[in-house]
Amino acid sequence: MVVAFKEENSVAFKHLFLKGYPGTDEDDYSCSVYTQEDAYESIFFAISQYHHLKNISLGTLGYGENEDNRIGLKVCKQHYKKGTMFPSNETLNIDSDIEIDCVHLDLSKSPEEWKNLSFFRLEFYRLLQVEISFHLKGIDLQTIHSRELPDCYVFQNTITLDNKAHSGKIKIYFDSDAKIEECKDLNISGPIQKNTQYVLVFDALVIVICLASLILCTRSIVLALRLRKRFLNFFLEKYNRRVCNADQWEFINGWYVLVIISDLMTIIGSILKMEIKAKNLTNYDLCSILLGTSTLLVWVGVIRYLGYFQAYNVLILTMQASLPKVLRFCACAGMIYLGYTFCGWIVLGPYHDKFEDLNTVAECLFSLVNGDDMFATFAQIQQKSALVWLFSRLYLYSFISLFIYMILSLFIALITDSYDTIKKYQQNGFPETDLQEFLKECGSKEKYQKEPSAFLSCICCLRRKGSDDPLILVN
Amino acid sequence: MVVAFKEENSVAFKHLFLKGYPGTDEDDYSCSVYTQEDAYESIFFAISQYHHLKNISLGTLGYGENEDNRIGLKVCKQHYKKGTMFPSNETLNIDSDIEIDCVHLDLSKSPEEWKNLSFFRLEFYRLLQVEISFHLKGIDLQTIHSRELPDCYVFQNTITLDNKAHSGKIKIYFDSDAKIEECKDLNISGPIQKNTQYVLVFDALVIVICLASLILCTRSIVLALRLRKRFLNFFLEKYNRRVCNADQWEFINGWYVLVIISDLMTIIGSILKMEIKAKNLTNYDLCSILLGTSTLLVWVGVIRYLGYFQAYNVLILTMQASLPKVLRFCACAGMIYLGYTFCGWIVLGPYHDKFEDLNTVAECLFSLVNGDDMFATFAQIQQKSALVWLFSRLYLYSFISLFIYMILSLFIALITDSYDTIKKYQQNGFPETDLQEFLKECGSKEKYQKEPSAFLSCICCLRRKGSDDPLILVN
Amino acid sequence: MVVAFKEENSVAFKHLFLKGYPGTDEDDYSCSVYTQEDAYESIFFAISQYHHLKNISLGTLGYGENEDNRIGLKVCKQHYKKGTMFPSNETLNIDSDIEIDCVHLDLSKSPEEWKNLSFFRLEFYRLLQVEISFHLKGIDLQTIHSRELPDCYVFQNTITLDNKAHSGKIKIYFDSDAKIEECKDLNISGPIQKNTQYVLVFDALVIVICLASLILCTRSIVLALRLRKRFLNFFLEKYNRRVCNADQWEFINGWYVLVIISDLMTIIGSILKMEIKAKNLTNYDLCSILLGTSTLLVWVGVIRYLGYFQAYNVLILTMQASLPKVLRFCACAGMIYLGYTFCGWIVLGPYHDKFEDLNTVAECLFSLVNGDDMFATFAQIQQKSALVWLFSRLYLYSFISLFIYMILSLFIALITDSYDTIKKYQQNGFPETDLQEFLKECGSKEKYQKEPSAFLSCICCLRRKGSDDPLILVN
Amino acid sequence: MVVAFKEENSVAFKHLFLKGYPGTDEDDYSCSVYTQEDAYESIFFAISQYHHLKNISLGTLGYGENEDNRIGLKVCKQHYKKGTMFPSNETLNIDSDIEIDCVHLDLSKSPEEWKNLSFFRLEFYRLLQVEISFHLKGIDLQTIHSRELPDCYVFQNTITLDNKAHSGKIKIYFDSDAKIEECKDLNISGPIQKNTQYVLVFDALVIVICLASLILCTRSIVLALRLRKRFLNFFLEKYNRRVCNADQWEFINGWYVLVIISDLMTIIGSILKMEIKAKNLTNYDLCSILLGTSTLLVWVGVIRYLGYFQAYNVLILTMQASLPKVLRFCACAGMIYLGYTFCGWIVLGPYHDKFEDLNTVAECLFSLVNGDDMFATFAQIQQKSALVWLFSRLYLYSFISLFIYMILSLFIALITDSYDTIKKYQQNGFPETDLQEFLKECGSKEKYQKEPSAFLSCICCLRRKGSDDPLILVN
Repeated sequence: MVVAFKEENSVAFKHLFLKGYPGTDEDDYSCSVYTQEDAYESIFFAISQYHHLKNISLGTLGYGENEDNRIGLKVCKQHYKKGTMFPSNETLNIDSDIEIDCVHLDLSKSPEEWKNLSFFRLEFYRLLQVEISFHLKGIDLQTIHSRELPDCYVFQNTITLDNKAHSGKIKIYFDSDAKIEECKDLNISGPIQKNTQYVLVFDALVIVICLASLILCTRSIVLALRLRKRFLNFFLEKYNRRVCNADQWEFINGWYVLVIISDLMTIIGSILKMEIKAKNLTNYDLCSILLGTSTLLVWVGVIRYLGYFQAYNVLILTMQASLPKVLRFCACAGMIYLGYTFCGWIVLGPYHDKFEDLNTVAECLFSLVNGDDMFATFAQIQQKSALVWLFSRLYLYSFISLFIYMILSLFIALITDSYDTIKKYQQNGFPETDLQEFLKECGSKEKYQKEPSAFLSCICCLRRKGSDDPLILVN
Repeated sequence: MVVAFKEENSVAFKHLFLKGYPGTDEDDYSCSVYTQEDAYESIFFAISQYHHLKNISLGTLGYGENEDNRIGLKVCKQHYKKGTMFPSNETLNIDSDIEIDCVHLDLSKSPEEWKNLSFFRLEFYRLLQVEISFHLKGIDLQTIHSRELPDCYVFQNTITLDNKAHSGKIKIYFDSDAKIEECKDLNISGPIQKNTQYVLVFDALVIVICLASLILCTRSIVLALRLRKRFLNFFLEKYNRRVCNADQWEFINGWYVLVIISDLMTIIGSILKMEIKAKNLTNYDLCSILLGTSTLLVWVGVIRYLGYFQAYNVLILTMQASLPKVLRFCACAGMIYLGYTFCGWIVLGPYHDKFEDLNTVAECLFSLVNGDDMFATFAQIQQKSALVWLFSRLYLYSFISLFIYMILSLFIALITDSYDTIKKYQQNGFPETDLQEFLKECGSKEKYQKEPSAFLSCICCLRRKGSDDPLILVN
Repeated sequence: MVVAFKEENSVAFKHLFLKGYPGTDEDDYSCSVYTQEDAYESIFFAISQYHHLKNISLGTLGYGENEDNRIGLKVCKQHYKKGTMFPSNETLNIDSDIEIDCVHLDLSKSPEEWKNLSFFRLEFYRLLQVEISFHLKGIDLQTIHSRELPDCYVFQNTITLDNKAHSGKIKIYFDSDAKIEECKDLNISGPIQKNTQYVLVFDALVIVICLASLILCTRSIVLALRLRKRFLNFFLEKYNRRVCNADQWEFINGWYVLVIISDLMTIIGSILKMEIKAKNLTNYDLCSILLGTSTLLVWVGVIRYLGYFQAYNVLILTMQASLPKVLRFCACAGMIYLGYTFCGWIVLGPYHDKFEDLNTVAECLFSLVNGDDMFATFAQIQQKSALVWLFSRLYLYSFISLFIYMILSLFIALITDSYDTIKKYQQNGFPETDLQEFLKECGSKEKYQKEPSAFLSCICCLRRKGSDDPLILVN
Repeated sequence: MVVAFKEENSVAFKHLFLKGYPGTDEDDYSCSVYTQEDAYESIFFAISQYHHLKNISLGTLGYGENEDNRIGLKVCKQHYKKGTMFPSNETLNIDSDIEIDCVHLDLSKSPEEWKNLSFFRLEFYRLLQVEISFHLKGIDLQTIHSRELPDCYVFQNTITLDNKAHSGKIKIYFDSDAKIEECKDLNISGPIQKNTQYVLVFDALVIVICLASLILCTRSIVLALRLRKRFLNFFLEKYNRRVCNADQWEFINGWYVLVIISDLMTIIGSILKMEIKAKNLTNYDLCSILLGTSTLLVWVGVIRYLGYFQAYNVLILTMQASLPKVLRFCACAGMIYLGYTFCGWIVLGPYHDKFEDLNTVAECLFSLVNGDDMFATFAQIQQKSALVWLFSRLYLYSFISLFIYMILSLFIALITDSYDTIKKYQQNGFPETDLQEFLKECGSKEKYQKEPSAFLSCICCLRRKGSDDPLILVN
């Protein structure tokens, strides 16, 4: 809700302060002007709107103080120190040092008077950027509905007219930075129930339960590690050979590790959430990422219980079996993918939006592999230089063909192969590892000898532990 | 046609009563205003248009009466009881009780006079919403062409200016609710043939045939159930063992169940349709869903007849064979899918349109799995906080890779496996169940002993029944 | 080029005669009006533009004569004969007979005078439609560049204001029908070379060659049919059994049939093309479809020559082997597909653009199966009645899952299976048919006995024929 | 950056000189006019804007000189020599010779005076095109930031009003051609560090290293070729048979060839890059294509090192094994694809944007095969002639079904088959070639006889060479 409030305020500011704002941003900038007249009008429009804010704005806005505790607009212009330029003669006389001039416009004079300021005689050929910055204060009354105290905001707005490219197009950026502050003088009558206590109690409960689950799982893992140590020594002494690595890992239950990670995330996330409720913190992102990921892990953890029925096991087993092959295969395919990514970025970067930075290239190629957005990608590079056009065709056709027809098909071959292996195992029994052989042997010995040994009781204990599974909770 | 009439009227109203309506809704609201002037103009424009409706509207509209039987507009404003706010000082003095003021504007005064009403001095900082509601009456003359009597409609229109967020952006909603009423005073001359009778006769015919089919199928199933009971007893007595569950299900012909469901739906749907024709009911949705689903089932039922040719059977058999595996597999994959759904909703919800509610997240992820809309989904979260951006990349790449490369490939492996099994069965014969063995044995006995037993004759009777298949009709 | 000329003229007319035409059509209509004032203005704008056409239009336009040989506009209005309606009282008094009033506006009076005509007092509540029709003449000078004689066109333009729905929205249709006529009085000086002769010669050459190819292929097929007859008799006499159907088809070379169809199409298409050049015909569509399809067939025919290398044969052989299975499979899947198509049309028709008619439903579902347009389809039905919304989700999820996961996977299983079969055959030899056994036997006999028989020589003759393949030409 | 500067200038020019430019191009043209008034206004707007350029433009622009060294606009109109046309009478009297009239508008008179020139009485019926061309000079100051000297540009702008179609729609093209020139009179004070030297040094280093790698690889290949020659002779003499072709290729290490190509490209690309830095060249495209492709090859080359671990080898081996089959298969499928491409182009060309030229048809079909853009392609041909509509449906359905269901499935079958073969080989050993047998034999002999022969030492030497791999560098 806080994110939405900031977002809506930002949109409202753009409509208020940008002349001719079309409702959506053009690119990474909000709008652009192409003539000197428009540039001046954009600047004076913002100034005028600021002066009449009270009579215009629909929001709960008031003027805020600057860094230097003054109310008003601060207009700064950056330009090259001095210079004359006659492009017709290709004569350029410029000092590349950059000078910054600032002026503070308070509310004492009317916007019309400010217009006549000599500061606003802009020499566009050496102008780099004009920056209009002002602070506004606002109150988010919406929270009253949800029975919470309203938040006060300070909006640091900056309008930037960027002429750095000197290409005849000035891009206008609008940047609104909102900070939450506690309101100084709140006086709210009426029935505001503070039911946040119940939420806090619930959060605390979640933390306690997760903590319990965390401790139990950690104990299981610690015990298992101790058991492994004893088993290794025992094996080394008795059979005089080392236990293979895979067998050593068998002792550590991967599911417990999953639960531990999930619990840790839930606990940290819940603590952050309580802090946010208490207005001590404002960073929602980390909190939501932690809680979100823990939810994902909890759901994945449910598969474990399905795995107790053998027939349900196939997904997990096949993924386990095919994982090393798939990863190795991905490493190879990844090389080619990286190659194409870099190549596309270098060659097509200046001609194609989707190839502008490495990250977008990777996304675009990934989408292409999965059959998305193909025609649009082809079409976007239509009317450029013939050489690049030819290269882009070769590039796209070869990439798509290679990945969709060769590599995706190989994936299917890999998985089908793993599935067949698993199926055969399920019918004929899995190949036994040292550990399993040993356990079987022990088991058969035990049957005949009925001698409870400390070692085996420990294994049983581990097994018993496994059954009182730590609680898993979805928040 | 009724749906289209309502839809078109709603669009026409938006053009008539909303100032600056751009032709399409912005989001779930129709348009939005950002300045006080625009807000006032939006309100007065609607009032003025309502007054001059007769001279403006192209439709067959007249003023309708309110709930309190008065003609005119009802304007209500919701605001906090009282309050003063100086956001500059972060001083807030507000009573969180909500007060509702209403005023009734009839046609006696001109819109200009209403404007000066003190009611329309809005204090935006404590205003929550303004609601303008009015009733209009209309007649759908279009039905005269199709030789039916025209319907009269009452439109309950509500324009809502929503300032609950206090973010400086007032969203304008337009809500048009249409009720069908019988016209009071119809006087239509000219050749209106009432050919609805033929349609009614056809509907009745459909109902009768479906009823016949329904009864025959039900009888078959009832007989089969009786036969099963006898068979179970017989088997228990003679071989002293229970018949396995799958064999018990063999007695119930799934196709008959399909036909019964389809018939029931057709009958209920047709009855609803007749009621709608007779203007007793106006809920088209349920009727169309019933008739539509029954049509789907009827077409699916046709596969049964194709199944009589053995070569055509492969689709049904493979689907039957792979279904339990696929469902079990889906249960596992579904866990991961659910985990991703929740996780995406929690983390990306405030930053991404497609992750706003659980339901859209599920649809978006489903589309991603099937290779749709990938680049757009990636691109939409471009310019937000770096942490969330990184998370979204990890989230999307891992989800898509996991599902398209691992899980879809496993699906293919599953189905290919089932197909191979079925193919082997078709060549070498299916493994025989108890029931089939028994039947074969009986058959061979019968051949040698030629003793017609009551039991076997009953099976034959069942078979004969199967051949006089109930009629299946497409409406 | 003719299509483009018509298209551009039609767009130009819309800009000239439709007030506020936004550049693209809204739906199947060009634009729409919502107020009485706009409706009147739309009509008078068209009339006024027509009067000043000479000074406005950029094209080579002149006034054309009506069906009744008069120059000017013909305005017709359709309305119910008489009626009074008070929607407020739900009182309707209407004669459902439709009356058509027409008026002819020539160029003698100014548009302003016409406005005062009592004809233009429209009573919208009983108005059905207003139709403004006029004829314009134009010359396509563009053809002069390609050294051809220019064509003269007669444009029959009709502007229709459609109020049949009486929903408050009048849809404006613009319909432009262009007829090509020979210009009466052409007088073109300057260097117009009539190089159409060369094209005609080329066309004639194509026809001759195709004819030759056609005759040779037909002869081969006729000979093959005769041979088959003799072989059948021979087989029946000697071995006293009938030759199986598949063997009988072996005699007819499918490639020759392909060549014959392709040749026929090319010949007819080329003749049509010559007729069009000679301005006797104006129907380009049939001609281009014939020539296009023949080109497709010619390219497919090239595969035959690749098939002479055994390794290249796999595509053809696998397709041949899997075709019957695939077709049978498609029949079953098609039933479910049809069921879903009908069901979607009935239920979702009024709520979703893509489900408006059967044909679009089929296309939409086909696109969904292939992973296209999924999220958009889901999203479009968002804010409607809850029941339909729920149904649409069930419908789409079940359809997509069923088809992508079950049926497409089965396809892969089918094809993989056929490929394996073919591969095994290629390694171990194909199973021999009666015919091949017979030929082999003959061959071995021949080797030992060296008795040239009339029958075998005929086979050889057939083979020799096969080698002098008819020419295949791409136009 | 240079590309971006040109692009932005071109957009700025369009906003400055085209009346009513909507911000994006309509098609391949920028905008279009439909009335005589608009056409005149478009022309005079451009002239007027040119005159007031200094006071309007935001960029660093000045007037440039024409080819004939004059400042000003050059307006040319192309029209048929003389003619009268009365389309109403279908009378055409025209001289198809094309006449070109030009006028030079300098800055001496005001734009209003120019308007009255008789030159600007356009007779649209015989007008072919009006071309307004002018030169502007600009300076790219942006480079100062990156501590480089600014570039001077000459923009050759041409506005073309194209009436060749005489369809009533004049298309307006804006063409901006930018040439980089060295500025004549640069006078830049302030701290411009010329750090290009460091870049040059780095480039030189890259070239040197690549050269070294190139020489080493070439040497390896030359030695291998010599070895092959000797081996061939040896084999021919000793065993008296020719070595098979595949074995001969074994001597040439494909990876070295890859490295050589990559090195060559890097060297040429780097040299071009240095030339561009030195302002001797302005063709970025070739340079970026060379460097991009070499980067791709370098990444692909990394797979080789992964291939040293046997498990990673599967991608390369399977691709190697399946490549000949896949290529042969593609040849067949390509025939059908080509057939469809030509057929679609011929038939659907005039009705569908995506089928306008062969190249777009190929892209559109390729996208369709991969499941992209399907519904949009279907929908775009909705409301045209019924015959073409029917054909388009047949065409699209058959193409998509054939390729997605048959051919893509066959691809999977092919790859799965190859993968199985490779897997079997990896388990049971690869089939041995003559060369390998010979080497093994030699190896075993060597073991027993310990006779170092010149021949074998040469093989060892080759092997040693292989281990000191030439350096591969990513730029």
